[in-house]
Amino acid sequence: MFADIKGLNEECGVFGIWGHADAAQITYYGLHSLQHRGQEGAGIVVTDGKRLNGIRGEGLVNDVFDKKKIESLEGTSAIGHVRYGGAGKGGLENVQPFLLHSQSGGLTLAHNGNLINANDLRHQLEMQGSIFQTTSDTEVLAHLIKRSGYLALKDKVKNALSMVKGAYAFILMSETELIIALDPNGMRPLSIGKIGDAYCVSSETCAYDLIGAEFVRDVEPGELIVINDEGLHAERFSLSASSAMCTMEYVYFSRPDSDIQGINIHTARKNLGKMLAKEAQIEADVVTGVPDSSISAAIGFAETAGIPYELGIIKNRYVGRTFIKPSQELRERGVKMKLSPVRKVVESKRVVMVDDSIVRGTTCKRIVSMLKEAGATEVHVCISSPPMKNPCFYGIDTSTHEELIASEHSVEEIREIIGADSLTFLSVEGTLEAIGRKGYGKDCGQCMACFTGEYPTEIYPDTLLPYEKELMR
Amino acid sequence: MFADIKGLNEECGVFGIWGHADAAQITYYGLHSLQHRGQEGAGIVVTDGKRLNGIRGEGLVNDVFDKKKIESLEGTSAIGHVRYGGAGKGGLENVQPFLLHSQSGGLTLAHNGNLINANDLRHQLEMQGSIFQTTSDTEVLAHLIKRSGYLALKDKVKNALSMVKGAYAFILMSETELIIALDPNGMRPLSIGKIGDAYCVSSETCAYDLIGAEFVRDVEPGELIVINDEGLHAERFSLSASSAMCTMEYVYFSRPDSDIQGINIHTARKNLGKMLAKEAQIEADVVTGVPDSSISAAIGFAETAGIPYELGIIKNRYVGRTFIKPSQELRERGVKMKLSPVRKVVESKRVVMVDDSIVRGTTCKRIVSMLKEAGATEVHVCISSPPMKNPCFYGIDTSTHEELIASEHSVEEIREIIGADSLTFLSVEGTLEAIGRKGYGKDCGQCMACFTGEYPTEIYPDTLLPYEKELMR
Amino acid sequence: MFADIKGLNEECGVFGIWGHADAAQITYYGLHSLQHRGQEGAGIVVTDGKRLNGIRGEGLVNDVFDKKKIESLEGTSAIGHVRYGGAGKGGLENVQPFLLHSQSGGLTLAHNGNLINANDLRHQLEMQGSIFQTTSDTEVLAHLIKRSGYLALKDKVKNALSMVKGAYAFILMSETELIIALDPNGMRPLSIGKIGDAYCVSSETCAYDLIGAEFVRDVEPGELIVINDEGLHAERFSLSASSAMCTMEYVYFSRPDSDIQGINIHTARKNLGKMLAKEAQIEADVVTGVPDSSISAAIGFAETAGIPYELGIIKNRYVGRTFIKPSQELRERGVKMKLSPVRKVVESKRVVMVDDSIVRGTTCKRIVSMLKEAGATEVHVCISSPPMKNPCFYGIDTSTHEELIASEHSVEEIREIIGADSLTFLSVEGTLEAIGRKGYGKDCGQCMACFTGEYPTEIYPDTLLPYEKELMR
Amino acid sequence: MFADIKGLNEECGVFGIWGHADAAQITYYGLHSLQHRGQEGAGIVVTDGKRLNGIRGEGLVNDVFDKKKIESLEGTSAIGHVRYGGAGKGGLENVQPFLLHSQSGGLTLAHNGNLINANDLRHQLEMQGSIFQTTSDTEVLAHLIKRSGYLALKDKVKNALSMVKGAYAFILMSETELIIALDPNGMRPLSIGKIGDAYCVSSETCAYDLIGAEFVRDVEPGELIVINDEGLHAERFSLSASSAMCTMEYVYFSRPDSDIQGINIHTARKNLGKMLAKEAQIEADVVTGVPDSSISAAIGFAETAGIPYELGIIKNRYVGRTFIKPSQELRERGVKMKLSPVRKVVESKRVVMVDDSIVRGTTCKRIVSMLKEAGATEVHVCISSPPMKNPCFYGIDTSTHEELIASEHSVEEIREIIGADSLTFLSVEGTLEAIGRKGYGKDCGQCMACFTGEYPTEIYPDTLLPYEKELMR
Repeated sequence: MFADIKGLNEECGVFGIWGHADAAQITYYGLHSLQHRGQEGAGIVVTDGKRLNGIRGEGLVNDVFDKKKIESLEGTSAIGHVRYGGAGKGGLENVQPFLLHSQSGGLTLAHNGNLINANDLRHQLEMQGSIFQTTSDTEVLAHLIKRSGYLALKDKVKNALSMVKGAYAFILMSETELIIALDPNGMRPLSIGKIGDAYCVSSETCAYDLIGAEFVRDVEPGELIVINDEGLHAERFSLSASSAMCTMEYVYFSRPDSDIQGINIHTARKNLGKMLAKEAQIEADVVTGVPDSSISAAIGFAETAGIPYELGIIKNRYVGRTFIKPSQELRERGVKMKLSPVRKVVESKRVVMVDDSIVRGTTCKRIVSMLKEAGATEVHVCISSPPMKNPCFYGIDTSTHEELIASEHSVEEIREIIGADSLTFLSVEGTLEAIGRKGYGKDCGQCMACFTGEYPTEIYPDTLLPYEKELMR
Repeated sequence: MFADIKGLNEECGVFGIWGHADAAQITYYGLHSLQHRGQEGAGIVVTDGKRLNGIRGEGLVNDVFDKKKIESLEGTSAIGHVRYGGAGKGGLENVQPFLLHSQSGGLTLAHNGNLINANDLRHQLEMQGSIFQTTSDTEVLAHLIKRSGYLALKDKVKNALSMVKGAYAFILMSETELIIALDPNGMRPLSIGKIGDAYCVSSETCAYDLIGAEFVRDVEPGELIVINDEGLHAERFSLSASSAMCTMEYVYFSRPDSDIQGINIHTARKNLGKMLAKEAQIEADVVTGVPDSSISAAIGFAETAGIPYELGIIKNRYVGRTFIKPSQELRERGVKMKLSPVRKVVESKRVVMVDDSIVRGTTCKRIVSMLKEAGATEVHVCISSPPMKNPCFYGIDTSTHEELIASEHSVEEIREIIGADSLTFLSVEGTLEAIGRKGYGKDCGQCMACFTGEYPTEIYPDTLLPYEKELMR
Repeated sequence: MFADIKGLNEECGVFGIWGHADAAQITYYGLHSLQHRGQEGAGIVVTDGKRLNGIRGEGLVNDVFDKKKIESLEGTSAIGHVRYGGAGKGGLENVQPFLLHSQSGGLTLAHNGNLINANDLRHQLEMQGSIFQTTSDTEVLAHLIKRSGYLALKDKVKNALSMVKGAYAFILMSETELIIALDPNGMRPLSIGKIGDAYCVSSETCAYDLIGAEFVRDVEPGELIVINDEGLHAERFSLSASSAMCTMEYVYFSRPDSDIQGINIHTARKNLGKMLAKEAQIEADVVTGVPDSSISAAIGFAETAGIPYELGIIKNRYVGRTFIKPSQELRERGVKMKLSPVRKVVESKRVVMVDDSIVRGTTCKRIVSMLKEAGATEVHVCISSPPMKNPCFYGIDTSTHEELIASEHSVEEIREIIGADSLTFLSVEGTLEAIGRKGYGKDCGQCMACFTGEYPTEIYPDTLLPYEKELMR
Repeated sequence: MFADIKGLNEECGVFGIWGHADAAQITYYGLHSLQHRGQEGAGIVVTDGKRLNGIRGEGLVNDVFDKKKIESLEGTSAIGHVRYGGAGKGGLENVQPFLLHSQSGGLTLAHNGNLINANDLRHQLEMQGSIFQTTSDTEVLAHLIKRSGYLALKDKVKNALSMVKGAYAFILMSETELIIALDPNGMRPLSIGKIGDAYCVSSETCAYDLIGAEFVRDVEPGELIVINDEGLHAERFSLSASSAMCTMEYVYFSRPDSDIQGINIHTARKNLGKMLAKEAQIEADVVTGVPDSSISAAIGFAETAGIPYELGIIKNRYVGRTFIKPSQELRERGVKMKLSPVRKVVESKRVVMVDDSIVRGTTCKRIVSMLKEAGATEVHVCISSPPMKNPCFYGIDTSTHEELIASEHSVEEIREIIGADSLTFLSVEGTLEAIGRKGYGKDCGQCMACFTGEYPTEIYPDTLLPYEKELMR
């Protein structure tokens, strides 16, 4: 839902559970908790110890599954996936988990992140006669594993992981074990929980609250964990692990009720808002947030600034994917879609409008203009993160849109473009401090590449798409 | 969506427009704005001046309509309806607008409210040979109009309205005119807007913001308005009109961005919360609201009480109607559905939990217990309206559930049942003051019957259903 | 399926059963047997003695019903209907059985035929305030019954039938009895069967073979029969009854395995073919029939003429309603649809092509040309009925197509238009003799109006549609 | 449709066209003509010279395709497939054409027949790391082609074909050429046609009549043909080619309007019936055929025997896949499904019932008993092919059913089991003579293995399924 407002899209969420009588149903609830990470497709694969069996489909979790389908997924262990699919990557065959059968047994895989050398690896594999069914990175890993010969599954996976580069939270399952792995920089969130005796894994901890599990621990960068009927076995597959968690997970992607590295997201966002109020020092009559992701930051801002927090912008909840878009003509006549102003709240007021980030600037411009038409005398835009100047190669789809406005324009230019009376971005230092990080650069434990251009991994210029290269110049 | 959380259901929303090239499409957007008033069915009927043509269906507006269907509804005027359907009232045939063709022309009707003498009228009509297709009140009015002989449509409608009792906002359309009528107590909201030269009508003003219309005025109690190509003509059909607007529209039903009688709903709710904080005088660490309807009241409470407002409870947005419900067993093991606590926010805290009303008490009890399990040391429940002790006969479906907890139990008993550390209801006087009303009883301009038992109309004991009679004892 | 080949459409089939544990399922099988009489919609209504309950839908019986739906129709008695719906008569609301509930009980009706004074009756009823939901004749009868006051249902039905004119086989059911009625000329087939102790009724006897029932007797013209738990009670409602069974039922509509008035349809058609061979006296190499309806006549023709019968034309079975029609361009390049020639069978042969009737002539012309392109040296068209010169007002939809070719052209002109080497129609006398009738005109027991223009009832000029009037000039 | 009556299932039909503006639409019509060869799934892949693009689905051609989908398949060349899928082989992923994309281009394949060494080949490929998506033979060929290195596509295909054994009519397409290949025994029909300048290929010639193409020639055993913008190039890939066309194609599978090796199927069947009448020498009153496949043989029988041919058995056309099957109880009470007797035709008659083959005997037994219950005094069963004693390994699914009755029982025993008054099978010699073959055994040009046990290829015992081995003992 955030997708077409923001132009910022996460690539996925994964969930898994081993050894629970209601494996498919719990995975179904788990995927619901992760639905905000991907609304284009969903799938669940179960094992009953003998055979893998799965259902996948396009759309929301509830579009894909009903009671009968979930009940047909018999087994005591399961993995599931929700996906976002950018342009040209759609189609049922790209919905995960990827499931393959062979005479020696089945294997299923799902993945959150992006392999930056996937094109190179695919080329090499095709040259050797491999037939690919999908355009997804996940199938590349599947082929690498299958080509690894007569090793135990865990060792085949380690072989394969030694060849891939990028950001990834992988989850794999055979008939008899569940394997998870996090990239050496730990760029995507992944954690372990426990429900009774059964281990579960999830991209976000909010899933544990929904299913009544307790949080055990985060998965470490470069860690590979095997879960089977003997229990949980963890080891490192990479020596050079060093944490660089995606900062946008705190700012925008994760759910407010999730925790990452021990920090609650709502609290982190409220702190970002408080820090922003300190840095901005605006005089105004009301503070309002852009729903839903900026509400926490706006509340924090209001609290610190001592300005009342109000619902100045409302989201039209039922405007979903099937909504008939207004024609250009109707739009010009005033027909709105996702967001409406609350006239009585903003009329004749100086308004602080808190948002979490600016990507292209078009949505921000539209909201400023909407507030002014509704009678706001001043609109002060306060962004609870630094200007986003650089593309992401680790699974966030900033690059399908023409351009990052902040890579081309100064803050003052952006202010003018969006028509605000003032525009404040949170500083890089303030951002890190608000989420409890110290230091700066490589050692801060966060990936700040989209703000600073310091990428935690090498970037492979030959595998970049043309527009990506241009963005990198 | 609120329905199964709260047990309080509005019965409908209506929208209409006369004389606009995009009549069907604008009605579609209008119904979207009113979607919260009814999610069981939706319909639109258009006229091109010669013939009425309509599409209806079960489900959300977006389930019923797509681009092709909206485009097939050619015409320059339209009426639309969203409905909530209680048990035994479902089925496509009960979805409105009701549309009938005869050799002398067509007629379409839609309705928000409840006719309290509908059963009597239906019995009389059937005795005279009328065949009913539906179980809805609306068809009763249609038959009364059709039996009114050779008068002009407006006069037929007045004849028919003179026979019906209850709460209603009616909207009717023939090939050549649109007629709206509000009951003599004006118990349901209904207002007029203007988009260019075209008049539109809507149950709530939030529709005007979405479609870019301007608000003109509220419809008065006992008023009948005819809109046609000559313009708008208003008259009174009842001399005994006296305003008794449903108070729950302010407290719970209407959207925060709507205004009723000049009062913004978000602002009214924030005032209810402020008044509640004054009356309650609670010491606590955090204030949290039950999403979505109580957020405004919670913000107001926090502001007045000087306690930080936090997201202590989160709503699982994607849990819709098709969600597979957890079995009793899974529920006991902790699987939640619509609402989850944000552990890090409430842990080791004294929590004020603001809600707008208590109907049966079961949801409230579940939330209190959820907050305590998440580590809250104290939970103080503060309700931004008085105890709801009496059933509603005017279109709010309190009566399909066993019992109103407040009609059977004292406040202290309720507190014990729901397991709260304290329980505060807003007073009747505080409620009226917060929404800007003065006086008390019949003259206050509001219907307070569910709180006080003072019904603004006679009640017809013979037409009450058995359980309704019991509730009335 | 025949519909777009021939341009001749029956209007319906009815089936009913009283007092059988599997009432809905048996009705489902019965409707399957009658599927050829109507493919646009189907419905079943059951009674369990207390309440009527029904399901209707557009499409084939199998499109409308599945196992779950049939099982949901609990009850021991049922009526069902399959319908053909001409242009402008479509829509779910016109699918039968028509079902109405009132405070005094339910009533359901279904009908095969056409009421020729339906428009007049509808006008009178609307003037008295009746609201119609459909455009079907059946609802007119429902209103007439409902307006008949405080009589027993049987007497209300007799009252109502005394007002209607035309061809009809009606089937009605309340919670406690099943009533059937046939028009005073018995123009539509309707018979009674018995399965164990349970009576059933059907438009055609082929249903009895499928469900394992035994044939009891045909319903008589002007007869009204009540079936309830006491058994079967028959009486006359019209004194002026005189049989005029539709001859096209023998020639074209009914299934070859049905019997009408004791005559098997396949045998009747074979006899029509034999008589045609005698009258035509053609020299040829092969005889072929146009599938499916003319196969029996072609076999009879071949037997009498001593010419081998071959499959010279084949029907593409899977070309159903959803078939994508070839564009004009592809059609000209040779793409065929429903019928293909069998080249090796007709090449270099003199071919007798037997068909049952010619309506517009376009299909016949296309088949002749197809056979010639496939190499037939001569094509002799032999039609097993007389030229169809007059429209039908009794439920056969000849009149939705521009024109009956035989009302405008001589046999020689038609031969030239269709491009045949010879064209022979069976004589009126030969037709009657082949189906075992003697005499001619009013006393022959058959309706021959479409051939001779002698209509068995008055025709109401004022209620004819404009194009019908033109056809009657 | 024949499937559950007979227990004999063909495995597929293929169609292709190169260089025609309406490639997808013509393929759609072609697949319609082949629909009887497979009703479980259908697919079309097109090329516009640059990219392959396809749509596949489960069900009939008309279930899978609509106008919009066909129009979305832009391109000037196409291949298509209809499939029958036995138990455990279902699922969308097994629907053909199989389509694969790689960085060096796309490839699509479809196939009619059975590779008898597919399991062996698949095992070897998986040991080398190949990942299979389907359980179909076709994918084995795809992997063999892809592993063939840097050759031209034609040579890769020849490499791959040199490794496979069995019966196959393959059709392959890249962006720039269409390749077809027939196994060295030419066991499945495959021919070439021409529509304007465009070559097309089809499993059966009946497709050419429907699309207005002219027949060019049959594909020869062991022939590989490349069609591209330069024209058609044919060569042999196998030196040991010797014709052994499946005899059941004449007896049962192919459409009556197709020709194989210059012989029309209807004519061949009529000749089989004539030969059978000569061999059987039965005295009777009527001859009837089991619809649809035995009609031609019955007509031939009747002509030679001088006994009238009648419609004694009728097929219920609308009883499709979605038909609700009668319960055992209803079946015992007489509810029939696909076939009904025509009582008036068989009552008190000595009936010759002509059928084309007996597989398990259960259907035959049911029909005999049905005819006797309908009053036939004698039922003489005459089968227009020899007893089927041996399983087929070349793509005909006789082996999914328990047993071939003729491999276990003598003719007299079968007669007693099915309850007939006499039972006659056509002799092996008579069968060959009727379809114009001379000689006997290997040199007759036909595969008679199911009758005689003389298989035209080696049989691979290790790859047989357990029940197949048992059948081979």
